[in-house]
Amino acid sequence: RYGQAELEDQVGAATGLAYTAAGGDTLSIEVSVSPGKGNLTLTGKLGDVMKESAQAAFSYIRTRADELNISSDFVEKNDIHIHVPEGATPKDGPSAGITMATALVSALTGRAVSKEVGMTGEITLRGRVLPIGGLKQKALSAHRAGLTRIIIPFENKKDLDDIPESVRNDLTFIPVKHLDEVLEQALTGEKNESK
Amino acid sequence: RYGQAELEDQVGAATGLAYTAAGGDTLSIEVSVSPGKGNLTLTGKLGDVMKESAQAAFSYIRTRADELNISSDFVEKNDIHIHVPEGATPKDGPSAGITMATALVSALTGRAVSKEVGMTGEITLRGRVLPIGGLKQKALSAHRAGLTRIIIPFENKKDLDDIPESVRNDLTFIPVKHLDEVLEQALTGEKNESK
Amino acid sequence: RYGQAELEDQVGAATGLAYTAAGGDTLSIEVSVSPGKGNLTLTGKLGDVMKESAQAAFSYIRTRADELNISSDFVEKNDIHIHVPEGATPKDGPSAGITMATALVSALTGRAVSKEVGMTGEITLRGRVLPIGGLKQKALSAHRAGLTRIIIPFENKKDLDDIPESVRNDLTFIPVKHLDEVLEQALTGEKNESK
Amino acid sequence: RYGQAELEDQVGAATGLAYTAAGGDTLSIEVSVSPGKGNLTLTGKLGDVMKESAQAAFSYIRTRADELNISSDFVEKNDIHIHVPEGATPKDGPSAGITMATALVSALTGRAVSKEVGMTGEITLRGRVLPIGGLKQKALSAHRAGLTRIIIPFENKKDLDDIPESVRNDLTFIPVKHLDEVLEQALTGEKNESK
Amino acid sequence: RYGQAELEDQVGAATGLAYTAAGGDTLSIEVSVSPGKGNLTLTGKLGDVMKESAQAAFSYIRTRADELNISSDFVEKNDIHIHVPEGATPKDGPSAGITMATALVSALTGRAVSKEVGMTGEITLRGRVLPIGGLKQKALSAHRAGLTRIIIPFENKKDLDDIPESVRNDLTFIPVKHLDEVLEQALTGEKNESK
Amino acid sequence: RYGQAELEDQVGAATGLAYTAAGGDTLSIEVSVSPGKGNLTLTGKLGDVMKESAQAAFSYIRTRADELNISSDFVEKNDIHIHVPEGATPKDGPSAGITMATALVSALTGRAVSKEVGMTGEITLRGRVLPIGGLKQKALSAHRAGLTRIIIPFENKKDLDDIPESVRNDLTFIPVKHLDEVLEQALTGEKNESK
Ligand SMILES: [Ca+2]
Ligand SMILES: [Ca+2]
Ligand SMILES: [Ca+2]
Ligand SMILES: [Ca+2]
Ligand SMILES: [Ca+2]
Ligand SMILES: [Ca+2]
Ligand SMILES: [Ca+2]
Ligand SMILES: [Ca+2]
Ligand SMILES: [Ca+2]
Ligand SMILES: [Ca+2]
Ligand SMILES: [Ca+2]
Ligand SMILES: [Ca+2]
Repeated sequence: RYGQAELEDQVGAATGLAYTAAGGDTLSIEVSVSPGKGNLTLTGKLGDVMKESAQAAFSYIRTRADELNISSDFVEKNDIHIHVPEGATPKDGPSAGITMATALVSALTGRAVSKEVGMTGEITLRGRVLPIGGLKQKALSAHRAGLTRIIIPFENKKDLDDIPESVRNDLTFIPVKHLDEVLEQALTGEKNESK
Repeated sequence: RYGQAELEDQVGAATGLAYTAAGGDTLSIEVSVSPGKGNLTLTGKLGDVMKESAQAAFSYIRTRADELNISSDFVEKNDIHIHVPEGATPKDGPSAGITMATALVSALTGRAVSKEVGMTGEITLRGRVLPIGGLKQKALSAHRAGLTRIIIPFENKKDLDDIPESVRNDLTFIPVKHLDEVLEQALTGEKNESK
Repeated sequence: RYGQAELEDQVGAATGLAYTAAGGDTLSIEVSVSPGKGNLTLTGKLGDVMKESAQAAFSYIRTRADELNISSDFVEKNDIHIHVPEGATPKDGPSAGITMATALVSALTGRAVSKEVGMTGEITLRGRVLPIGGLKQKALSAHRAGLTRIIIPFENKKDLDDIPESVRNDLTFIPVKHLDEVLEQALTGEKNESK
Repeated sequence: RYGQAELEDQVGAATGLAYTAAGGDTLSIEVSVSPGKGNLTLTGKLGDVMKESAQAAFSYIRTRADELNISSDFVEKNDIHIHVPEGATPKDGPSAGITMATALVSALTGRAVSKEVGMTGEITLRGRVLPIGGLKQKALSAHRAGLTRIIIPFENKKDLDDIPESVRNDLTFIPVKHLDEVLEQALTGEKNESK
Repeated sequence: RYGQAELEDQVGAATGLAYTAAGGDTLSIEVSVSPGKGNLTLTGKLGDVMKESAQAAFSYIRTRADELNISSDFVEKNDIHIHVPEGATPKDGPSAGITMATALVSALTGRAVSKEVGMTGEITLRGRVLPIGGLKQKALSAHRAGLTRIIIPFENKKDLDDIPESVRNDLTFIPVKHLDEVLEQALTGEKNESK
Repeated sequence: RYGQAELEDQVGAATGLAYTAAGGDTLSIEVSVSPGKGNLTLTGKLGDVMKESAQAAFSYIRTRADELNISSDFVEKNDIHIHVPEGATPKDGPSAGITMATALVSALTGRAVSKEVGMTGEITLRGRVLPIGGLKQKALSAHRAGLTRIIIPFENKKDLDDIPESVRNDLTFIPVKHLDEVLEQALTGEKNESK
């Protein structure tokens, strides 16, 4: 079952790009926030590296709450759940880092994520975006899903020429070095309440 | 031991459809709520995917407590237990997601679940219903148990023609895209106190 | 070492029937309640299924505390320990469910369990009694131990004819569908303080 | 390294009898109590069965605190540590149950344990004493260590004739059915402060 | 992907030197501090030895908070996260100890770490610096990354002559016995707010 | 890398003697105490037996806080960390028990440990010192490290004649039965603030 672009901009969800032995696929990252005591729950058959990647995204957002217009006590007063659907499919690796960070910021600010955007990139605790593997297969799956703007790590620019020209022409690649650029590109100004 | 439809509408219990190497079967999902501190207990020899599916159902309901007429502090003030009987039989997979969500909403609102309804579908953190496998075997077991209305994921409509016509004619299939539709179909207006 | 019936009615202990590769045996289920913070301890080399069965019994009693004349805050103010002696012998399976529930209710209400009663049956979160295996061997061990009244799941009535007539004639079998019936049959009206 | 009887009566320590593939040996059970929050620590390379046995002994004492002249809030206000020296030697089995219970009662009441007494027996949550294995080897090791009074489970009386007469004549065997009898036999009236 | 020196002095990050079967590499250690309850999170596919090394660094800083101009209640009021990027690459060993300590002190004081400095050395609970392996390969990777000052354990001075002269001439090696010296060499006086 | 005697008397550190397949070695045990909530952290690639040994040492000191001039609420108000450097080297066994106890008492009282002293011996919950193995190899490593006074368990006196006379003549062996004697021998009267 191949992923498809969202029909509307989403709050609390972002679209990542995955790459497995079976090829590329899109990946929805969903985030829910509810009144609680600061628990972070991670589900969707995630491997350890992907879980640690979610923790890094979460910590980065905590240290930058102010700049991101997030109340600084959001952690103490809420429980946060990050889920990656198709719960029977194992997922791992650090490349969903920026997607998890984007979905978190969206859920915590109410700002929507553009339905046209897909993204891939490891995130560090300082918000830096590190290179990932499988860009070609990820681009093909993004194309098939109907996405049009693809955020990639700056260091992966050199891999763009591996993507078939027909696909490359339909997609706008946005190379970034830091999560600030990701959020600027992926978040819309509007606060939708979609589901 | 094959499942049978309930004799009365139930509060805090819903009927799912399972599919294993041994064929299809129905599955009771039971939920109890008692004064406590917010613990969620999951029993019935459930695999990790099924447990994560329960957590996703639980988080979705927490974020939508208001719309569902559930007191927003139900988590802090109660312990919730989800159990799937026939405790010696291993169970796994995400397809009981909407059944667990329905049993939870029933237990927390006191609204009964119709005894005629069986259901199958993965739930996401946004309440979306994702497709499942084994629809044919699940439909046969629902039929044998005496259920009449079967809620299925919209994306599984294409699998309905695999079901023998004699069975298909006895059952009403209700394809859904979101948990809102599941609850509308499965919950009765009445607050029974059955056991 | 084969089990024997108790010499007196017991508070906080009930007699179950087990069935292993080595044949049937009786099983004492002991429950202690002491001032505490709501911890539930399970010991006696119990397998996961048996532990989950104890949790189901415990949750059922919590949701029905009122009807059972148990103070609704017994969980917050006590620690409860369920132990199954002969601590070196591994035990598993869901069939001690109703025995654990009965011992719990006895310990929490101070009502004694009749020394003549043995029982077997899986319990669900709604207090339903589900069928078990090995009824013949269990009946033989109950007979050998000197028990006279045996509570069994209603769905196991069909297995009674497998029991040798000489044994069957000495025992009264009480088929039940719900824990309410178990408690009515097993608990005496008196509050003994035995040990 | 074979065990030897204590030189003085001890508070917070009792002598058990162990039986392994390598033969019998004595076993010191030490208990410390210090101001704390109710933690129970178990050390000395103990197997799961032995740890559960300690928990059963501990729960029994909690439910009987009053009768034993132990302040009922000793659990909330103290941390308790049970240690079995020769920390590199693995130990397991339920037969140290009454020894652990005796050492606990001694530590919590300040009453000394007689230096002449060795003991072996499984304890249940009701304080009952169940039979153990290896009585012959245990008796030989008790004899070698210089103990003179040996508390054994009542059901093990039948094994006394397996012990060589020369040894049997030097030892007084005290068969018991309940921990009350153990404490009566093992605890002295005095409150020593030994180390 | 080989590491490169930072472009600016960093707050909350320091550059270590790693040595694996695949040769030497540089390693960024990132630390974030956010309002919390004293949790220490360690991510980046770290082995047990490396995690314990982080705990030793953390404890040393806690006992020396005063001398380091860190508020003594920083632990109770913050959550601290140490992450080592390239999250898919397993890392282990104690040699990042002084790097983790330096990044922690930088994050907690706001003092920047010089971009020219790389370092390697085990840290003890007293702040002592113990020798490490693979100095030659580590020096080569530091050189390739463009670092110029390399802090090494005093006991590794004897290994400097294994490093090719061309590389050795470009680098300044700073042998140290204690973390105090490391901090003096690595921290700048300024409080940058880099990312 | 062989150990060497400390250059000064140390507070919060003591020197143990280890014995592995590779021969004997000295072992620094470091203890840090910082304001906290009563957590005990054990690091240095310690096996389970060694960790349990640390817990026994810790409990003994808690029960004797008064006699040792340690404030009785030190546990509630501090976090304690015991670390054994050379973090990549696995360590196990109970023979560092008295060394860990000595380092703990030193850290909690501020009294220094004499730099000339090495020690080996299992500790029990009553402070008793039990015999250890490998005394010959341990003595050789103590000698090589430049230690001059070696505390050994009383029961190991019989092994002293296995040590080469040349080594034996340089060392003073102090056989002890109880931790009180260890502390009397190892702690100086002074409160140094070394590192
Ligand atoms: Ca897919
Ligand atoms: Ca290329
Ligand atoms: Ca079934
Ligand atoms: Ca079809
Ligand atoms: Ca038995
Ligand atoms: Ca039959
Ligand atoms: Ca021994
Ligand atoms: Ca006999
Ligand atoms: Ca690298
Ligand atoms: Ca050299
Ligand atoms: Ca060494
Ligand atoms: Ca000798």
